[in-house]
Amino acid sequence: MQTPKKIAVVGAGLVGSLLAIYLKRAGHQVHVYDRSPDIRNIEFSGRSINLVMSDRGWRALEQLGLDEEIRKIGIPVDKRAIHLGTDELNYQRYGNEDQAIFSLSRGILNRKMIDLAEAEGVEFVFESKIWDVSLSTATLHQGETERGEWHDLEYDIVFGADGAFSRIRHRMQRQSMFNYSQDFLKIGYKELHIPANSDGTHKLDKNSLHIWPRGEFMLMALANTNGSFTCTLFMPHEGENSFEQLKDRATLVDFFAQHFPDTKEVIPNLVEDFFKNPKSYLVTMKCFPWTHNDKVALIGDACHAIVPFYGHGMNAGFEDITILVEMMEKYGDDWEKIFKEYENSRKPNADAIAELSYRNFMEMSSKTADAKFHLQKKIEKWFSAKHPDKWKPLYSRVTFSHQPYAEALAEGDRQNEIMQEILTIDNIEEIWETEPIEHRILDLLKDKKEA
Amino acid sequence: MQTPKKIAVVGAGLVGSLLAIYLKRAGHQVHVYDRSPDIRNIEFSGRSINLVMSDRGWRALEQLGLDEEIRKIGIPVDKRAIHLGTDELNYQRYGNEDQAIFSLSRGILNRKMIDLAEAEGVEFVFESKIWDVSLSTATLHQGETERGEWHDLEYDIVFGADGAFSRIRHRMQRQSMFNYSQDFLKIGYKELHIPANSDGTHKLDKNSLHIWPRGEFMLMALANTNGSFTCTLFMPHEGENSFEQLKDRATLVDFFAQHFPDTKEVIPNLVEDFFKNPKSYLVTMKCFPWTHNDKVALIGDACHAIVPFYGHGMNAGFEDITILVEMMEKYGDDWEKIFKEYENSRKPNADAIAELSYRNFMEMSSKTADAKFHLQKKIEKWFSAKHPDKWKPLYSRVTFSHQPYAEALAEGDRQNEIMQEILTIDNIEEIWETEPIEHRILDLLKDKKEA
Repeated sequence: MQTPKKIAVVGAGLVGSLLAIYLKRAGHQVHVYDRSPDIRNIEFSGRSINLVMSDRGWRALEQLGLDEEIRKIGIPVDKRAIHLGTDELNYQRYGNEDQAIFSLSRGILNRKMIDLAEAEGVEFVFESKIWDVSLSTATLHQGETERGEWHDLEYDIVFGADGAFSRIRHRMQRQSMFNYSQDFLKIGYKELHIPANSDGTHKLDKNSLHIWPRGEFMLMALANTNGSFTCTLFMPHEGENSFEQLKDRATLVDFFAQHFPDTKEVIPNLVEDFFKNPKSYLVTMKCFPWTHNDKVALIGDACHAIVPFYGHGMNAGFEDITILVEMMEKYGDDWEKIFKEYENSRKPNADAIAELSYRNFMEMSSKTADAKFHLQKKIEKWFSAKHPDKWKPLYSRVTFSHQPYAEALAEGDRQNEIMQEILTIDNIEEIWETEPIEHRILDLLKDKKEA
Repeated sequence: MQTPKKIAVVGAGLVGSLLAIYLKRAGHQVHVYDRSPDIRNIEFSGRSINLVMSDRGWRALEQLGLDEEIRKIGIPVDKRAIHLGTDELNYQRYGNEDQAIFSLSRGILNRKMIDLAEAEGVEFVFESKIWDVSLSTATLHQGETERGEWHDLEYDIVFGADGAFSRIRHRMQRQSMFNYSQDFLKIGYKELHIPANSDGTHKLDKNSLHIWPRGEFMLMALANTNGSFTCTLFMPHEGENSFEQLKDRATLVDFFAQHFPDTKEVIPNLVEDFFKNPKSYLVTMKCFPWTHNDKVALIGDACHAIVPFYGHGMNAGFEDITILVEMMEKYGDDWEKIFKEYENSRKPNADAIAELSYRNFMEMSSKTADAKFHLQKKIEKWFSAKHPDKWKPLYSRVTFSHQPYAEALAEGDRQNEIMQEILTIDNIEEIWETEPIEHRILDLLKDKKEA
């Protein structure tokens, strides 16, 4: 058992709320600050991509016994449905028959998490803006405006769970030996909407993540429990086929008719939504260290904001909590040690999921429409079924396992090298399901292991 | 001729002062702000590495006819003098007989540059802290403290020449699509001092850059005009042979006796200087874009702070000015175009000199003590003398030419590949000065060009 501390969590998002529950259960006094109004009392903003919860996220909830509550508000998604432009859909299963990720509305999930945290005795302070922190004393500086009067809030420990534009990290950035990077993608996104049928059913298969892959841009849709889908259009900010070009109603309608003809029936408010909803940016942020002595620690997007293409932003943040709590159990009151081990354990894995997420845009927007890629997936699945101990596909390692992301990435690169070699074999389309190919893969696995 | 504008330059360092002269000569009203007191009225800080001016820096001064003024306060340095630990010195010439870089004291040079700028009619405002800028209007926000009262200063154009920790860039960092990184080296540095002999002469050869290469750490010395040398000790902050370990007088004296025995006579105030002078950090900062519309532009360290191991921080900053002025002459009053072309032209070259500078620590601290490396240099010099049109060594491309840094880096990598192959030839130590080797290099040059 740890000595009870007075702890502030800055940020009442998903990671902040879940962390608060863990800290409360560990016996601490926990206050959560958020600059926005209570999300339970407002409409959502129209700039969110639906979340997908997978094994890493579930584990953090299961340990608290909260997973069942959350499963009720999600929809299992076990495959991709690829819209190639024709009427035909191409389905790509994510894992085994019994494996699925869960589509969740960020807003609904966040409301639920805050409810659960309040029920545990966590105290939330909304519309309270934290502008700065004194790192050596864990003192928060709170005020109405950045240049106005500030009040000091004293804590034993502060967690910065305040997202990609974290003010807590912003203070740490000004320290010597603090490494930091922010990298914006040339691709942005905009939320669109597929409403439910009048009887409340879904207009598309609700258990699929729908993708319209078009190379440099793509459309995506994930189901909500109320029969609707949250759609996201990803495309470059500027240049050919970009947001910059979709300036008026006619151009927009033409563009969708040309590239996404099968959405005409299901996105009735295309024009209104497109011009009403903001265009959002995609950024990868990395930094190190994540902690300051035994006083301040960053967690979630605040220390490793990633692009959304692997669906792992929340899962990685929840796994941060799992590892932090492991260290708390291991090192008791030695918070300096807890923080050091936490950041050292998580940093390489955060870098790995950042890399995987960045690469996955190419997979989703281009490769899902590519015959060679389909063949590769088929061969991997076939071989994996024959040798489950020898081959677990990268997607499964990342999504349906707790293997550290860095190991999954390294293993995935090795597998990909093997598959690229296999795909060069003459007539592979015809002969992939044969013993010689099986043996060739086994040999390559042996070679690469020894290399 | 451009329409006269009211221009603020933030930062009265070397780049800010020189830029101000160019802008003034182009007919603009120019105010330079600096947060520090006038460097002409204060003692220097004891945390500077001596600068070296080379061709890129000279060109920017020559175009204004100011190079002769500056040559008077510098000392030509035409070679490295490698202190291997024995009494014997190993000399490595930088270029041809008539080529040298110039050692300059940062403080003396900066004073001189401000004198020159004032003489042109540039107005300097010292001890005036610029905390923020409104990018869309080129308005500076000035005040005594960051949280205190601020005054607005209105300009047509603002240049941020305010160094690695630029406040102007800090504002730009908060814009969407602004990419940024800061990376600290594990190595820091501390200034030490070799005083002049009592008759005012130098204790070591003044026309050499002295290096004591010791692998993970090194000592360096560059001459001043007053007979002294500015020394710099580079070593890791932590770990074996680190600043962390040199905690007391006895350890420090032992360490120097063991690793730098020949400095005992020439650094009499080792202990005092070491414990008095601050330990400094080394950081590489990169960002993009460098400009905002036609209103604000970053220049010098503010947009590309690099580590000092190639001696090109100032030279790269001065070359920024050369390119900016080229664009001013080309595009007249179209400042948006001037800024776009300036940043697009400079960015790849700033990245290249950052990479070259980073790599050069290894060259200075380790390779200069390595026999294979000496042999490589000898072969390159020999071959280059025979085929000056086919082979210009990387150091010369970077330091004694105006070839864009990015091209120099690419060419240097190609040459290095060739030399690595040559160095694997049996008995190369004996046979390097022969026709077969010459032809082998010529063949490799042809292969690599075609590749």
